[in-house]
Amino acid sequence: MADLGALAQVGCIQIEGAIMKLHNYFRSSTSTRVRVALNLKALETDYLSYALLKDAHKSQSYLAANPQGLVPSLELDDGTVLTQSLAIIEWLDEAYPEPPLLPAGALDRAWVRALAYAIACEVHPVNNLRLLGYIKREFGADDGAVKRWFTHWVETTFAPLEVQLSQSPQTGLFCHGDTPGLADICLYAQVWNNKRFEVDMAPYPIISRIFEACDAVPAFTKAAPPHQPDAV
Amino acid sequence: MADLGALAQVGCIQIEGAIMKLHNYFRSSTSTRVRVALNLKALETDYLSYALLKDAHKSQSYLAANPQGLVPSLELDDGTVLTQSLAIIEWLDEAYPEPPLLPAGALDRAWVRALAYAIACEVHPVNNLRLLGYIKREFGADDGAVKRWFTHWVETTFAPLEVQLSQSPQTGLFCHGDTPGLADICLYAQVWNNKRFEVDMAPYPIISRIFEACDAVPAFTKAAPPHQPDAV
Repeated sequence: MADLGALAQVGCIQIEGAIMKLHNYFRSSTSTRVRVALNLKALETDYLSYALLKDAHKSQSYLAANPQGLVPSLELDDGTVLTQSLAIIEWLDEAYPEPPLLPAGALDRAWVRALAYAIACEVHPVNNLRLLGYIKREFGADDGAVKRWFTHWVETTFAPLEVQLSQSPQTGLFCHGDTPGLADICLYAQVWNNKRFEVDMAPYPIISRIFEACDAVPAFTKAAPPHQPDAV
Repeated sequence: MADLGALAQVGCIQIEGAIMKLHNYFRSSTSTRVRVALNLKALETDYLSYALLKDAHKSQSYLAANPQGLVPSLELDDGTVLTQSLAIIEWLDEAYPEPPLLPAGALDRAWVRALAYAIACEVHPVNNLRLLGYIKREFGADDGAVKRWFTHWVETTFAPLEVQLSQSPQTGLFCHGDTPGLADICLYAQVWNNKRFEVDMAPYPIISRIFEACDAVPAFTKAAPPHQPDAV
C-alpha cells in the first residue's frame, strides 16, 4: 500500500500500483455514479473535467481514448480506459470488493441491478443533454416542452419504482437493506438530475427518503455535482 | 435433472426444480436479448406473449408481477419475477454458468459490458416504442422524422462502436473472441431493430459481420423476432 497521505497532497492516491484518472463532468449524472462508487471504495483519482456544453469530450485526444466521446471514463495507470458508468462500477466492485456494491445472493443481485437499470436504461438515456438538444433543435421544443419531456420520463419509471420499493421486504434505509449499493448510486445521481428540472418529488416519498439517506453519507455528498471542482 | 424430453412436450423444461416462464414479445429487442441468453444456456421456458401495441403489458395482472409494465420478465417457479433484460441475463449467467456470457478477466468483462451498455443504454432506450410514440404524439413527428430520429441514434453509437471493435485486438468472430456473449446478444437484438427502420448497415462492416456470425448460431436464430410464435 502506498503512502496515501503523501500522494493525496499531489491530487491522487496510488492504490495497488494504480494511479487512476477520472474523466468526467460535475453535472453528468453518469459521472456522479462513478464518483460515488469510487468514494464508497475509498479510491481517490485525478479529476479531469470536460465541459460538455463546450464539446470538450469531442476533442481528438479524448476520442482517441474513448471513441464514444462520452463521460465518464476511468483511465488506469497502464493507459487502459474503462467506459460506460455501469461497466466501470461493476469492475470497481470486482477489483475492490470491499464494501460490496451488490448483495451476496444471485437473486438479490438481480433485484438490485433491475432497480439500477430501471433508472440507467429507462430514465437517464432519454433525458440526457444530447437528447434534449435534439428535441429542441429538430422539434422546436421550448423550455416548457423540454421540462414536460424530462418530467414525463421520470414519472414513467419513478412511479412504478416507488411501488417496487414499497412492496419489497428488502427495502431498508437504502434500496436494498441498510447499506448503500448500485441501485442507490443510480437513484442518487438521477435525483440530482431531477433537481435541475424541478421535478416534484412529493409522489415519491420512499425514493426521496433514500436520496436523503444517501445524501447523509459522505461518499455520496462528496460526489454530488455542486461539490465538484468544476461546478458552476 | 428432470426428464427433459417429457417436459419439453408440455412446452417447458424443468431444470434444477425451476419451471420458468418468459413474459415477452417477439419484436421487443430486450426480449430478443433474453431469448438468446436462454437459448445459449439451453434453457427452455414457457413463452407468454404481450402485444405491446394493444397494451397487453399494462394489464392489472402483469403490472402486479412487474410494476414497470415492461417486457421481458422472467418468472421463476416460486413466483419470483425478474425484470430488466440485462439483470435477467446477469442472473442467468450466475445461476447457469455454462457457457459463460462474460469473459473470465475483470478488465475483459468491463470491456464486454461497456460494448453491451453502449447499445443498451445509448441506442435502445431512445428508440423504443414508447419514445417513438411520444415524438409522434407531442411533436408531430411523421414517418420521415421518426426514421431520422431512429437512424440518428443508431449512427451516434454504432459509428464509434465500429471504431472500438476495429481497434480492439480482442475482437474475433464475435465482439470478444470467438464465442458469443453479452455484447453480441445486445448487438444482435439491436440490428434486428435496425432492420425495421431500414438503417443502412454499410458503414458498419464489423458490426454486420458479427451480426451474421451470430445469425449462424442456432441459439440466436431461434431467438430472432420472425421465428417467435407471436410473430406477425
